Amino acid sequence: MSQHCTRRWWLGAAVGICLILVGFGTSFADPPVRDPLSTWNDSPSKKAITAFVRRVTTEGPDFVAVDDRIAVFDNDGTLWCEQPVYVQVAFALSRVRALAPEHPDWKDRLPFKAVLDGDHRALAAGGQKGLVEIVAATHTGMPVDEFQSTVSAWLHTARHPRFQRPYTECIYQPMVELLAYLRSNGFKTFIVSGGTTDFMRPWALEAYGVPAEQVVGTTFKTRYEFKEGRSRIIIQPEIDLVDDHAGKPVGIERAIGKRPILAFGNSDGDFEMLEYTTSSPGPRLGLIVHHTDAEREYAYDRQSAIGRLDKALDEAPRKGWIVVDMKSEWRQVFPTLKQ
Amino acid sequence: MSQHCTRRWWLGAAVGICLILVGFGTSFADPPVRDPLSTWNDSPSKKAITAFVRRVTTEGPDFVAVDDRIAVFDNDGTLWCEQPVYVQVAFALSRVRALAPEHPDWKDRLPFKAVLDGDHRALAAGGQKGLVEIVAATHTGMPVDEFQSTVSAWLHTARHPRFQRPYTECIYQPMVELLAYLRSNGFKTFIVSGGTTDFMRPWALEAYGVPAEQVVGTTFKTRYEFKEGRSRIIIQPEIDLVDDHAGKPVGIERAIGKRPILAFGNSDGDFEMLEYTTSSPGPRLGLIVHHTDAEREYAYDRQSAIGRLDKALDEAPRKGWIVVDMKSEWRQVFPTLKQ
Repeated sequence: MSQHCTRRWWLGAAVGICLILVGFGTSFADPPVRDPLSTWNDSPSKKAITAFVRRVTTEGPDFVAVDDRIAVFDNDGTLWCEQPVYVQVAFALSRVRALAPEHPDWKDRLPFKAVLDGDHRALAAGGQKGLVEIVAATHTGMPVDEFQSTVSAWLHTARHPRFQRPYTECIYQPMVELLAYLRSNGFKTFIVSGGTTDFMRPWALEAYGVPAEQVVGTTFKTRYEFKEGRSRIIIQPEIDLVDDHAGKPVGIERAIGKRPILAFGNSDGDFEMLEYTTSSPGPRLGLIVHHTDAEREYAYDRQSAIGRLDKALDEAPRKGWIVVDMKSEWRQVFPTLKQ
Repeated sequence: MSQHCTRRWWLGAAVGICLILVGFGTSFADPPVRDPLSTWNDSPSKKAITAFVRRVTTEGPDFVAVDDRIAVFDNDGTLWCEQPVYVQVAFALSRVRALAPEHPDWKDRLPFKAVLDGDHRALAAGGQKGLVEIVAATHTGMPVDEFQSTVSAWLHTARHPRFQRPYTECIYQPMVELLAYLRSNGFKTFIVSGGTTDFMRPWALEAYGVPAEQVVGTTFKTRYEFKEGRSRIIIQPEIDLVDDHAGKPVGIERAIGKRPILAFGNSDGDFEMLEYTTSSPGPRLGLIVHHTDAEREYAYDRQSAIGRLDKALDEAPRKGWIVVDMKSEWRQVFPTLKQ
């Protein structure tokens, strides 16, 4: 081969190598940047969240190992709409109506009579005790899988009275994005809710990307049963843990066994969870959804019977908790419905 | 450029591209195949395990989605040595001796007196009630993090009386490999043990690769405390759940919320967990470690006070559970000690 040709050969080889490298380089590069928090305005809360995530995922004094990146989220009023009544209460009332034919005595017996008559005043008069009776009658005494099937079936047909869409479409799109954003940064995301674990597990994966084993909630005692070759877990009419207020850190310790580094709530029921998360050395972030948007969702705080936010709102500045103003900080509230 | 040279140029480019592709191909290829279960002999149990994993991870009628690939493992006698006494009992007795100076009354009070005198007969005579008293005195009434630090410190210095190595080096190497093998096939691996959650969480990640939130065990009730700017979870002297026998499926439901597809135990205490796992449609695998190796570890089953394996051994053939013969199926029992 002439020297000339040899040089050409090498030139060709080099160009070939370059072409390939450019090709691979392109295919390896990140896809065009899409904002993972696109439904959040570029307001203080979003900046605080992204700054925190950068801080704990960047090598340095505040770096947090992946195993310790635990984020906990309240559900009602934090991940989905809790007005005009908690979704689980709407479910329980609907179950009373559905089960009434099997319980003829209910039509004369409070609190069931109040539900069947649509008598909200009598129902409210029954207070906590009445509600416990309703929950026991509709949530216990059956296998867990049977209860969960009932929940799934109900969610399939029930509609939010104001928004006329399935409750699982009354979840907050900015929070769904935040959960995914945290997970893509190595966080494990947990739900820690006053609602019952059994009620949330059937749909939390599809709605939030949170698997059953990362759903922590109020629990009933259960017992194991093996009968005619079938094994089942039967829900007992006895509370095991009320996962609210001081019960939230207890539930977190029991289910997770680590102190979270990020907690997100919306009411005084989340106070202790926020406090437990943020009152320890190292980088910590506490956040509160403030419902300020009567037009797109609801506006309520100190005076609300559901999701009352009073003490936590007062303490937030002192504790360094970030109060997210729904109206000004969320570009969109609910997911865009698929046509 | 002459036609000759142009051809050379193309030839060079092609060779360049090929060189690069071969290079990338090599770097992308799997590393040289290393058996992930190298301490298992190629015996029936290993074949059954690998066949099961292939079955549930291969597209087809028995494919199981990653989210449902839940595997549960007993700890004592399944993942680590439980003879001559449960490690947690050795820890409790050691704590009684360490705390004795703060409790002068213990030297005259059973069951503590029996521990301090090394009087095993008196200790055994105290039975379950005595043990509960010892556990309450050594495991409760303190913050969880303080208890866990005590466990870590003890494990650092304590040695197994026969093998003269740290207890965390008396884990079973074949099981450590199996846990990793399952995880590399998309499984989530959980510990479900009669031992307490608080006792296992401090070391389960390092020993088994199982994070705190995947450790399910016996629990005490706890309460949340906020004092002088510090928040803590205090362990109460009251049992919350005994995660043994029928308590295991209950613990699984509470912590995981899904029926596992694989369960591994070694004693009758695991019977209900094995039964719950395997008595449901779809691919299921139940396994039992049979301690048959008096030379390298221990040989015991029906007559043992610790880790009795009787009913489950009888039922195994009928239930399709695989009994792993330690002596013939495990090439190695404990990890090779680092020098």
